[in-house]
Amino acid sequence: MSKFGKMKESSRESMSAVSLSALNDAGLSPREVDSAFYSNAFGITEKQLHIGPLINTSLGIPEKPSIAIESACSSSSAAMHEAYIHIASGADDICLVAGGEKLSHLSTMEATSYFAMGSDYAYEAINGVTFPGLYAAIAVAHMNKYGTTQKMLASVAIKNHENALSNPHAHLHRKLTEEAYLESPVVAYPFRLYDCCPFSDGSSAVVLASEEKARELKDELVEVAASERAGSVATLQERKDITGIDGAELAGRKAFRKAKISPSEIDVAEVHDCFTIAEIIATEDLGFFKKGKGGEAAIQGETALGGSLPVNTSGGLKAKGHPVSATGAAQLHELYEQLLQKSGNRQVEGAEYGLAHNVGATGGSCTVHILKRRR
Amino acid sequence: MSKFGKMKESSRESMSAVSLSALNDAGLSPREVDSAFYSNAFGITEKQLHIGPLINTSLGIPEKPSIAIESACSSSSAAMHEAYIHIASGADDICLVAGGEKLSHLSTMEATSYFAMGSDYAYEAINGVTFPGLYAAIAVAHMNKYGTTQKMLASVAIKNHENALSNPHAHLHRKLTEEAYLESPVVAYPFRLYDCCPFSDGSSAVVLASEEKARELKDELVEVAASERAGSVATLQERKDITGIDGAELAGRKAFRKAKISPSEIDVAEVHDCFTIAEIIATEDLGFFKKGKGGEAAIQGETALGGSLPVNTSGGLKAKGHPVSATGAAQLHELYEQLLQKSGNRQVEGAEYGLAHNVGATGGSCTVHILKRRR
Repeated sequence: MSKFGKMKESSRESMSAVSLSALNDAGLSPREVDSAFYSNAFGITEKQLHIGPLINTSLGIPEKPSIAIESACSSSSAAMHEAYIHIASGADDICLVAGGEKLSHLSTMEATSYFAMGSDYAYEAINGVTFPGLYAAIAVAHMNKYGTTQKMLASVAIKNHENALSNPHAHLHRKLTEEAYLESPVVAYPFRLYDCCPFSDGSSAVVLASEEKARELKDELVEVAASERAGSVATLQERKDITGIDGAELAGRKAFRKAKISPSEIDVAEVHDCFTIAEIIATEDLGFFKKGKGGEAAIQGETALGGSLPVNTSGGLKAKGHPVSATGAAQLHELYEQLLQKSGNRQVEGAEYGLAHNVGATGGSCTVHILKRRR
Repeated sequence: MSKFGKMKESSRESMSAVSLSALNDAGLSPREVDSAFYSNAFGITEKQLHIGPLINTSLGIPEKPSIAIESACSSSSAAMHEAYIHIASGADDICLVAGGEKLSHLSTMEATSYFAMGSDYAYEAINGVTFPGLYAAIAVAHMNKYGTTQKMLASVAIKNHENALSNPHAHLHRKLTEEAYLESPVVAYPFRLYDCCPFSDGSSAVVLASEEKARELKDELVEVAASERAGSVATLQERKDITGIDGAELAGRKAFRKAKISPSEIDVAEVHDCFTIAEIIATEDLGFFKKGKGGEAAIQGETALGGSLPVNTSGGLKAKGHPVSATGAAQLHELYEQLLQKSGNRQVEGAEYGLAHNVGATGGSCTVHILKRRR
């Protein structure tokens, strides 16, 4: 993955660079790629659609098939799922997945408006609600139903900023104190500035190979033990309950069934924390904590490094940053390093199973991957 | 598929409607869909990304996974390929594919500019070349190398307008004479207005099932004998030769190999005729006619109804219309009806094999499907 933050490169340049870097890491030449899966949901802000042939041409493989996959903030996880299915079908042996986004050329107002096109534009965005407002509604409902507090929200932000300090790829390298959190401006009650992930530029890539090919390439491997997707009712106002995300629960259950493990066997998790409340409900939806207990787990350090289940060791979307289409593949990048014990200061000792949970919009699309260390 | 032309509905509404219609035709309820693949490349002009959960919610299946697939003008063919791979992998038994586009709210200038984002924006569009200009360069090269004439181009347009007259879904129901063609304004030499497909609104959908499921549903079936994709160097200026499209040739060769047939066994073909020259080079790239002989074949009626290989019996992009993301699935719709002998006045008698050829941009992405009647 690239450094997240602000980049001068276009998405196509940055995605080409991380693709080449991932292929190098895998010991592969681009020519060995069978199919390429790219995500660049907001490429239109760079006036560029149909990015696949551009990246393939720059990698020297114009003849290879490529597609662009969009699933809002879960785009590159959805791309990874397609690559997984391609290999499972026997059609391909080696697939390249890359996601990237450049947003820093937009004003915050423009970026917020483009992001809002990932919600139901005709019912939500057009009436003035953007993602901070939608997730704030989720937070208020969670606080009302379960007694979740603002200090619990703060604890998620503080932990993720702390984790990001030891991640060289992270956008925000800034220790966050509870005082600074409480002094930051209100964005949409109960969210303060530090409840919200930043707008980031960046790219990330994953190379997926069939077991046979992977064995030829590496001694230490990470296996995809599950790749599962599900959806939820698109808009908040049509849901029965907004204190959890149905699609995330369903994708999680399917993934645990496929991997034949239970939530307690996960050693490290990257979850979709576009806002602090999102991490709390993710840990509940996935069965790591009981419904309504995610906030308490966070404030008690259960999800910190050294806790019972370290969550978002990378810094998460909150502090590593959230270049929309790069996020899913970046979560997998963090798990890959964790499972191969390459995470330095933020290493979860002996991690065997990692889970990545990536949500599109307010959960209309959800993807859960379970990765396993293989030796 | 919907009527192509101008629609009041949004893409999400139209795509929901054709999805339901395709499921009804297959004798399926939406609940039986395992995964949904949607294409809506220019959804951003309706301020809507992440269209999958919206359509799934309107179909009453919010829990099902969906993704949006973009491959410029070949988006829904690429979506069909993903569905095909999902079923081949055993992950899914029934997949829904739908593509749609609404463009009539844009001015011609705006629509041309959005389309140009499917080219290499930084090298092509930004310097003033849009798709009519790019394909005009291809046409000039073909004329110079092979002696292709403007009358040959005209014959493609006249044939496709004629075919569209008997297609109730077609955008343009207007008989075209050579005189009218020659009197129409020059768009980009050698193209006159009638060399260019129109901007159209519309949607189309396909239901794909595993052989076992399909057998339970219908007696008369259409089999996907091949679904193959390939790419080409992204920009014209970096290609060695622009009188053909490498990716289309490669995808075609792969498809014939997979289906175990030769080009001469195809009874009816839908090919990507965004401009008249595109149909001529498609028939050469696919091996229906020798390189440089496509124009002659067209003017001699080989590709007309009753000719040796009827091409674009639907009217093609040229006259049926080209609602970008609906085009690939609409080609499959035409072949489905042809192979089931449901094409009325434009029926190719006894058609057993049909081929669909769909190109993204100037051929950066190419998808070829071969369909076969099964009884």
